[in-house]
Amino acid sequence: MSVTVREAVFRLLRQFGIDTIFGNPGSTELPMYRDFPADFRYVLGLQESVVVAMADGFAQARGGAAFVNLHSAIGVGHAAGSLFTAYRNQSALVVTAGQQARSILPFEPFLYSAEAPNLPRPYVKWSSEPARAEDVPAAIARAFFTALQPPRGPTFVSIPVDDWERTCLPLPAREVASRVAGDPTLLARAAAMLSAAQRPVLVAGASVARDQAWDDLIALAEHHKAPVWVSPLSSRNSFPERHPLFAGFLPADREQLVARLAGHDLVVVLGAPVFTYHVEGHGPHVPEGAALVQLTDDAAAAARAPVGLAIVTDLALGIRALLAGEAPARPDPQRRAPAAPLPADRLTDSYLLQQIAALRPAGSVVVEEAPSSRGAMQARLPMLERDSFYTCASATPTAAGRPWPSPPLAHV
Amino acid sequence: MSVTVREAVFRLLRQFGIDTIFGNPGSTELPMYRDFPADFRYVLGLQESVVVAMADGFAQARGGAAFVNLHSAIGVGHAAGSLFTAYRNQSALVVTAGQQARSILPFEPFLYSAEAPNLPRPYVKWSSEPARAEDVPAAIARAFFTALQPPRGPTFVSIPVDDWERTCLPLPAREVASRVAGDPTLLARAAAMLSAAQRPVLVAGASVARDQAWDDLIALAEHHKAPVWVSPLSSRNSFPERHPLFAGFLPADREQLVARLAGHDLVVVLGAPVFTYHVEGHGPHVPEGAALVQLTDDAAAAARAPVGLAIVTDLALGIRALLAGEAPARPDPQRRAPAAPLPADRLTDSYLLQQIAALRPAGSVVVEEAPSSRGAMQARLPMLERDSFYTCASATPTAAGRPWPSPPLAHV
Amino acid sequence: MSVTVREAVFRLLRQFGIDTIFGNPGSTELPMYRDFPADFRYVLGLQESVVVAMADGFAQARGGAAFVNLHSAIGVGHAAGSLFTAYRNQSALVVTAGQQARSILPFEPFLYSAEAPNLPRPYVKWSSEPARAEDVPAAIARAFFTALQPPRGPTFVSIPVDDWERTCLPLPAREVASRVAGDPTLLARAAAMLSAAQRPVLVAGASVARDQAWDDLIALAEHHKAPVWVSPLSSRNSFPERHPLFAGFLPADREQLVARLAGHDLVVVLGAPVFTYHVEGHGPHVPEGAALVQLTDDAAAAARAPVGLAIVTDLALGIRALLAGEAPARPDPQRRAPAAPLPADRLTDSYLLQQIAALRPAGSVVVEEAPSSRGAMQARLPMLERDSFYTCASATPTAAGRPWPSPPLAHV
Amino acid sequence: MSVTVREAVFRLLRQFGIDTIFGNPGSTELPMYRDFPADFRYVLGLQESVVVAMADGFAQARGGAAFVNLHSAIGVGHAAGSLFTAYRNQSALVVTAGQQARSILPFEPFLYSAEAPNLPRPYVKWSSEPARAEDVPAAIARAFFTALQPPRGPTFVSIPVDDWERTCLPLPAREVASRVAGDPTLLARAAAMLSAAQRPVLVAGASVARDQAWDDLIALAEHHKAPVWVSPLSSRNSFPERHPLFAGFLPADREQLVARLAGHDLVVVLGAPVFTYHVEGHGPHVPEGAALVQLTDDAAAAARAPVGLAIVTDLALGIRALLAGEAPARPDPQRRAPAAPLPADRLTDSYLLQQIAALRPAGSVVVEEAPSSRGAMQARLPMLERDSFYTCASATPTAAGRPWPSPPLAHV
Repeated sequence: MSVTVREAVFRLLRQFGIDTIFGNPGSTELPMYRDFPADFRYVLGLQESVVVAMADGFAQARGGAAFVNLHSAIGVGHAAGSLFTAYRNQSALVVTAGQQARSILPFEPFLYSAEAPNLPRPYVKWSSEPARAEDVPAAIARAFFTALQPPRGPTFVSIPVDDWERTCLPLPAREVASRVAGDPTLLARAAAMLSAAQRPVLVAGASVARDQAWDDLIALAEHHKAPVWVSPLSSRNSFPERHPLFAGFLPADREQLVARLAGHDLVVVLGAPVFTYHVEGHGPHVPEGAALVQLTDDAAAAARAPVGLAIVTDLALGIRALLAGEAPARPDPQRRAPAAPLPADRLTDSYLLQQIAALRPAGSVVVEEAPSSRGAMQARLPMLERDSFYTCASATPTAAGRPWPSPPLAHV
Repeated sequence: MSVTVREAVFRLLRQFGIDTIFGNPGSTELPMYRDFPADFRYVLGLQESVVVAMADGFAQARGGAAFVNLHSAIGVGHAAGSLFTAYRNQSALVVTAGQQARSILPFEPFLYSAEAPNLPRPYVKWSSEPARAEDVPAAIARAFFTALQPPRGPTFVSIPVDDWERTCLPLPAREVASRVAGDPTLLARAAAMLSAAQRPVLVAGASVARDQAWDDLIALAEHHKAPVWVSPLSSRNSFPERHPLFAGFLPADREQLVARLAGHDLVVVLGAPVFTYHVEGHGPHVPEGAALVQLTDDAAAAARAPVGLAIVTDLALGIRALLAGEAPARPDPQRRAPAAPLPADRLTDSYLLQQIAALRPAGSVVVEEAPSSRGAMQARLPMLERDSFYTCASATPTAAGRPWPSPPLAHV
Repeated sequence: MSVTVREAVFRLLRQFGIDTIFGNPGSTELPMYRDFPADFRYVLGLQESVVVAMADGFAQARGGAAFVNLHSAIGVGHAAGSLFTAYRNQSALVVTAGQQARSILPFEPFLYSAEAPNLPRPYVKWSSEPARAEDVPAAIARAFFTALQPPRGPTFVSIPVDDWERTCLPLPAREVASRVAGDPTLLARAAAMLSAAQRPVLVAGASVARDQAWDDLIALAEHHKAPVWVSPLSSRNSFPERHPLFAGFLPADREQLVARLAGHDLVVVLGAPVFTYHVEGHGPHVPEGAALVQLTDDAAAAARAPVGLAIVTDLALGIRALLAGEAPARPDPQRRAPAAPLPADRLTDSYLLQQIAALRPAGSVVVEEAPSSRGAMQARLPMLERDSFYTCASATPTAAGRPWPSPPLAHV
Repeated sequence: MSVTVREAVFRLLRQFGIDTIFGNPGSTELPMYRDFPADFRYVLGLQESVVVAMADGFAQARGGAAFVNLHSAIGVGHAAGSLFTAYRNQSALVVTAGQQARSILPFEPFLYSAEAPNLPRPYVKWSSEPARAEDVPAAIARAFFTALQPPRGPTFVSIPVDDWERTCLPLPAREVASRVAGDPTLLARAAAMLSAAQRPVLVAGASVARDQAWDDLIALAEHHKAPVWVSPLSSRNSFPERHPLFAGFLPADREQLVARLAGHDLVVVLGAPVFTYHVEGHGPHVPEGAALVQLTDDAAAAARAPVGLAIVTDLALGIRALLAGEAPARPDPQRRAPAAPLPADRLTDSYLLQQIAALRPAGSVVVEEAPSSRGAMQARLPMLERDSFYTCASATPTAAGRPWPSPPLAHV
């Protein structure tokens, strides 16, 4: 009944719905690929920062975890920048890497990964080199479940090259919750604050998209006639950018951000930190007199927020709980005027993005890797559909072989 | 409007309801205590492992976080064993320690703590030495909120000695959720599994006590006529040990544990790992044919469980959700026979504990620090009331000056 | 008398003889480059693994330390693979990276590097984010001295973006030893062992080249008529590969390596680990009955060697000490037969390398980044001059703008 | 020919001259002690901070390495403060600790040490949990050699409980250099600076004692008629404190220290940092116009010194090299006046120490663990013989059962 570690791992991958392996293998990974099963595909990247970035986009678009296999210390090293981005993107990545054979580790051989679990830190949620070959499948299972727990993020398992041919028992299928609901008492209080507010405003972050709360957010905004801003530098699109309640993109600058929110007495941040800045700033984090409520799937973002009431919750469950609050009569907020079209007299990034917006097919997806043109993109290339905007580092998920079911890709 | 860092920190401590500081100070901590406010008490321990153990018991008994101040590298070092225990006990401890003055750190002075945030790792949930004096209060606030998030545990802030006299703005009060509810879909499924089971059994761990789910667990056990075992090496008492449904204490040995659970078709683990072993074992983790459901406030315990369905949740909220399931007619489980009384012919630990049980006043509390007599204690000194049993390392909370409101303490 | 941190750092760089900065800057590094001094050049790489690889080659070729400036967490991440290689190459690299402004670090801003000193670990010898802006120059000085101490390797300093405009005192010039001599008693014993040996053999590693002991090694080999093997996977050339005593390249395979050394009664390893393996192996590490002496500048390589007498020393000083031993009369060792020339009938890597060998100008330098063709290179492209072979990861030092004084570069 | 891991480890310990094990064992260490060999003694400490402090004193007094065995995570935790002290004392300690059985590590059992090699960091020089049972002896050997390399310090090996009964090959005896000589060029320059100085002064630190350079330092001081100060907070006695050239103890305060050294044109620091401060200070680190030379066995202390020429060397070898410089005619420095005797009218620490000085037998040893009485001790209890003063944390080496050959112990 016992099987090879390799067989146990592939069975496990199937249990997690994995049929794609992103990687760039070397000698310490090859035994994993002996008799490579026909129901898997291998997506090769020739530099590991690209490999992980592809997997990052794939995981975001698929909604589950992606599986990555890298080459020992050097491959994990090359990937560390993209691991940082995936960590910030809250992408569920299970990253594995080869290690030299256990018997020669004391001699620190060529390709030896010293303190392998420490190498990808601090940008992994969990990291391990199992003490025995037969524990590799369970470590990978734990890596999957951990990567998928909120807040999602990368995990790492280092696997000595001689482990794959050892035998072990296959793992039973099991299930681990990958979302939590907010504390009902606090959610009720937040709902009451929203009901009592004169001029509430919503700020939407990437977790709204990650937790599939697109419709819930629209419902909440409309219920309360609250304008919706996008949180600074959000890596996903969470609200239709031509909706009458769409207010625009908050800048990553404290004073400017507070100025945008001026006049509101309650700021409800949904699925974002409070706040992601990019430049130094001073003074308060919210307009004077305004209260703040944050719903987030990231306990660390809750703990470090400078102001307000923070509730850790799945965003879909959390927003639905807020919808239970009554909405008083409120005036319609002022509608945001769209930018005037640019004439075709100069090829600027703004013009280019405007034309892409005009020509892109419905259902197409935009992957951004040009933060310096983010402003132009926000102004000219509106996201109108759910799950149509992703931020990845260094690479595009197209190479991953259609993670998105079918629609064409507009890569910027 | 700006205040000293010291003043800002004491204001913050008051916001968190802290009136007690556990510590053992040295030169690098003294400026914190200038003009020590009259509404605080300082509980001195002469060795830091004792200081942290006192605070651990205090936090467990109080139900919130305890605040600790240690002496630079040497004090944190002495405390590291008790930090391990507090981490395992899921006690919310905010541990601070002095550091030499910022201006002389490059010369690695006497008492210098090199890489101070790394020293207490891996047994802290979060660790920091703020980049500026004025960020110390916010770091301590984050340390509190993080320590209180599930699973609770220690956090650490290193504070250079010259920071206390610097000025900063006082922090606004804020609130951060310290519990989450389980995914309602999975909880409903678990409730249905419980309803469908022929012979379910409950295994109760320390988080039932920590999350104040004592009554909820009794209700669930009675609703389903399910016997209740205590999970191996539980650090708290979670079920009345003379209740007709009380089944006993599971051993930390895989084969023996599975034997105890034989005959059940569903094992519901509430607030405990699956399972805490102490010796090597082999074979399955549950009886053949049995399913397992785990409710836990510890996402890591969920991710690494070897079998079953794991749901991350506050235990009180989770158990209440399970109570929604219907209970079929089931026979009364066999009642556990209490041990026959020991005659007064020899002074053994069992006899001693039997006499303590006979003589202890109602409402007294037992703090255990003798794992080798745990078996005797379980047999002879039953816990009948909620929150009457605590495991601490190396020290007893009595020294902390009545963390427990009034009842006498039976310290074993 | 006080200057900006930027001015102090550039003065310091001049003290270390630095006139070249390798980097890929972003917003968090820009203040460093305000009024960029005319006596420095900036070598831009568009991906950080290339930046560090260039600096690695530059440091190797120059013989001192190279200075690198990267972009915050993402840049250090991208560079981590090349840092691994530089660490293994024992290249003295001082790597700096930007960090967000100190005042906004508590909000974990965009580009924030969490636990910045931990990110490049374990492949840096020392890592720091100074507690104050004014300590940045001293941290960089320490990073230089540490990088240059044996065994050389990368060091890291994280620099908040707002530090560059602060003021500080310029640092005095100082000098720190960058080599040590071996214990004279042990070196004398090693010299006596060499004199007493019947058939000694030398194994030369990269530190012979790094410590400029090329002539010393030739003298030692000729003095004792001892054949010279190159240690497995050596990253530098340390002995003329057409010298009559040149024996060839040891394989990174234990059994094969021992077979090559069969018949010798003393193995003297100079400037290399004992031994760098690439595949699993079994049995002894030296031929039966043979003794082993290792001279190394790497204390860790000494501590972990599986057999023999290990002496930590600068290789030039160490080999000179060995030369003090008398050489008994010994027969000339058998001369290695060169490979027969390949005909021009197929374009293989071997043929290509043979033609490069035939056509390369004197004084040209070979940079290897193709380990899978290392065998062909060893067979067909012999290194005849000192300092003509370097191993770098992912990139060639050509881009660094002539680190080598003048001769042409043959890049393989 | 293969033996159990236990047998291989005891053979190895004998090779290192170890006959004493300091420890406090628990269940995870017991298999190590099965059939405990009669030629070893076990020194039990009931709290691990004491265990390590005893071993620290033992290692200092013996001059080699001491061997420690602790109980899993909790024991290593309790010991971490004393590890800090041993690290600062540069004591060669090989610390081992139990770990749970490899097969149950995935379940994070009771006593489980998570990331075991990270727990004692940063106060160990090397730390490992071997990948296989059969690699434990080699890891311990490496731990010994590393602990003994300059600068000496603690190392750590984590050993799963089931490893002791496995089989492996015994390790061959080998030898690794545990000292290095300074760069001869730089030492010659330093000697020349000393010869050219008008009024040189020597500052002696603990490494003079550690490297057994007592006689060499006396010779150097007398050769150059240079007064000798003790470096701030030195943990060992390095110069006879009634010698005519003995100048006193430097304070750990920058301005005061510089005032003590005023008038000298060359400061030669031997075996100490430049300098160990305890309070903030400002201004220069040496008197205006004075040059500084540092000889140290600690490369980190060399790299971070704020001024001067730093040479990494064994102190005995280094001081002998300095003795090669000619000494010009110089006036005798002023002799330090001893403190007037205290009358027997009050029992102060000064009086007590004065009486101890009067009554202590020749050859007795003083172990200090009261830094706040260090001043009184320096004034009243002079060290006249080599190796008679040690600083340890929290405990005295007496408990270790006579590490010192025979003389009585005066413990303060």
